[in-house]
Amino acid sequence: MAQQHLDPTDPTAGAAPTGDALAGYLRAQATEFLRALRLHRESGAAAGGTDESVDAARALRRSVRRISGSLHTYRPLLETDWSEALRPELAWLSGTLTMEHAYAARLERLLLALHRLSGATVFPAQVAAASSSSHAGPANPAPTADRGNLTVGAAKAGALLERQLTLARTRAHSTALQALGSSRFHAVADKVAVLASEVPLTPTAPTTDLHPLATAAEERLTDAIAALPLVTAGHPYNAEALIHGLSPDPAPHPQDAPWHQVRLLLRLHRYAREALHGETTPVDVRLLTAGQALDRHRDASEAAAAAASAARTPRIAPATAYALGVLHADQRHEVEAARFAFQQCWQKQAVST
Amino acid sequence: MAQQHLDPTDPTAGAAPTGDALAGYLRAQATEFLRALRLHRESGAAAGGTDESVDAARALRRSVRRISGSLHTYRPLLETDWSEALRPELAWLSGTLTMEHAYAARLERLLLALHRLSGATVFPAQVAAASSSSHAGPANPAPTADRGNLTVGAAKAGALLERQLTLARTRAHSTALQALGSSRFHAVADKVAVLASEVPLTPTAPTTDLHPLATAAEERLTDAIAALPLVTAGHPYNAEALIHGLSPDPAPHPQDAPWHQVRLLLRLHRYAREALHGETTPVDVRLLTAGQALDRHRDASEAAAAAASAARTPRIAPATAYALGVLHADQRHEVEAARFAFQQCWQKQAVST
Repeated sequence: MAQQHLDPTDPTAGAAPTGDALAGYLRAQATEFLRALRLHRESGAAAGGTDESVDAARALRRSVRRISGSLHTYRPLLETDWSEALRPELAWLSGTLTMEHAYAARLERLLLALHRLSGATVFPAQVAAASSSSHAGPANPAPTADRGNLTVGAAKAGALLERQLTLARTRAHSTALQALGSSRFHAVADKVAVLASEVPLTPTAPTTDLHPLATAAEERLTDAIAALPLVTAGHPYNAEALIHGLSPDPAPHPQDAPWHQVRLLLRLHRYAREALHGETTPVDVRLLTAGQALDRHRDASEAAAAAASAARTPRIAPATAYALGVLHADQRHEVEAARFAFQQCWQKQAVST
Repeated sequence: MAQQHLDPTDPTAGAAPTGDALAGYLRAQATEFLRALRLHRESGAAAGGTDESVDAARALRRSVRRISGSLHTYRPLLETDWSEALRPELAWLSGTLTMEHAYAARLERLLLALHRLSGATVFPAQVAAASSSSHAGPANPAPTADRGNLTVGAAKAGALLERQLTLARTRAHSTALQALGSSRFHAVADKVAVLASEVPLTPTAPTTDLHPLATAAEERLTDAIAALPLVTAGHPYNAEALIHGLSPDPAPHPQDAPWHQVRLLLRLHRYAREALHGETTPVDVRLLTAGQALDRHRDASEAAAAAASAARTPRIAPATAYALGVLHADQRHEVEAARFAFQQCWQKQAVST
């Protein structure tokens, strides 16, 4: 387990963290939320695309996830009516704020994959451009990567994906802006503002040990991991992820769901640990690596679905459809690779702890 | 190294095998060739598709490869004019006899992959049917696997591949039959008949140790393996095999060539060992495993090319092209998996010997 970097001058250091520590963590996250919100407004999100507004949006999402996760894990220590009312609102906000970034990142991933598959040299400048494009608002559209070395099919597939995902991203941007101007959002922001100074703990919470609830969150994670097909995932090239790749089922990858679930539980476990040990405690490297593998799993899964979805566009050329098929399979391989990476990392963790 | 299963009553047992042993090996292979040829004629190859004719064709190919390989490895021990005249004829014969089987196996591999990718349960009976189809002549066309669970795209892709590869196989069958009736073939058969009783060794060959030439063959193999990108191949999911998967280059996979070359050199090494130790010596399991990985590499590489080629058929539906793209990428993934399997097997070999 990671060391506890508690302040050695803190008289409570070494004592089990209680609801008071949770309150401190929630206040800090709420303060961070308000800071990010102010930055976001000052950076002029309506103009879109500045680095500041992107950073602010990221900080907003980050604090919302942590508040939401803590409300979930430490639910018994918080006033029920208050937390039950706030949680769905935070979920709505988190979902709304995430979409624009997700579409931009998906497009970047797919265009880079198309270049790799075309054997085209992707120059660092192009990667940087594609990379920064994911941070740019729709007013500053993703620079089209050089298509000089692409086949007609790959170039058309790239153009189609760019059209579809840029449209989705523009819509997500508008939706997020509308959300941030809505009375629903102002109600959430007001509640978070109150949280920054006053956390509605239950009467006994301030002296209740946080560990049992944190442990329960960890157990939900380990139980979910135990149910994953890790033996298969640990055999390289098991070809599991592409099974159903041509299934007539419109949602052909139920096999991904348990991994997505573990990704969420891993995040909840990390936030639960932050409340225990303080957010400045270095994140356990293995948890971080496992989380990155699951992020990659999720990203590749969604990119594969986007390629499959683009291939259902009416009247596309066969060459375009072929390139999208190759791209879909490539991303499903990425899904499989991410599962292997998770298995390797988690196995090491199990052995070394 | 494998044990030498020499006849314990043989007074030369334990002595280094010389050109005499090579002559014995070549006589045995020539005799086997003549036996297989007689069987092939008796089984009525013109009617096509009987198990006997398939077995006979396989035995013919097998002996041709061994004679041809020995002429190559032990060239300095054989009369130059004779062996230089025979070698290209054996190469022609081997190539001609291989094609029908290769097309049948390729179709089987691709149809099974389409079923796997469709998430359709492939019942053992279907696999058996698909499997035996590769042994059947064109008069007994490959039974179409049940397409009930395939998407329209996968079913159309399967039908297209079946049409194209069955046509290629039928042509290869006719070509092989014509070849076996040609005066060119009769000239080869006559030479092999002579070889069955009299091997044209050089004057000094009967007492020349075979080991230096066998060792040279092994060194050509180990040198070629040393030049393979085995470090990359040993990292699962390195995504190398699909690079250039959408390349505009019509022969986009020069990266496969060194592996194909190692496959041939491994075979030459195996045959060189057979001449040394006798054909009844059990094959070194690790050589066999390495050879199987390289066979799989070659088969997947050619299946991927067949899928890509089918996708260039004019006027196919986008759904067909998409399925062929997924199939192509799946087979390139198999190529990568085969390289990984070879690396694992060869690394073990290097450690344990």
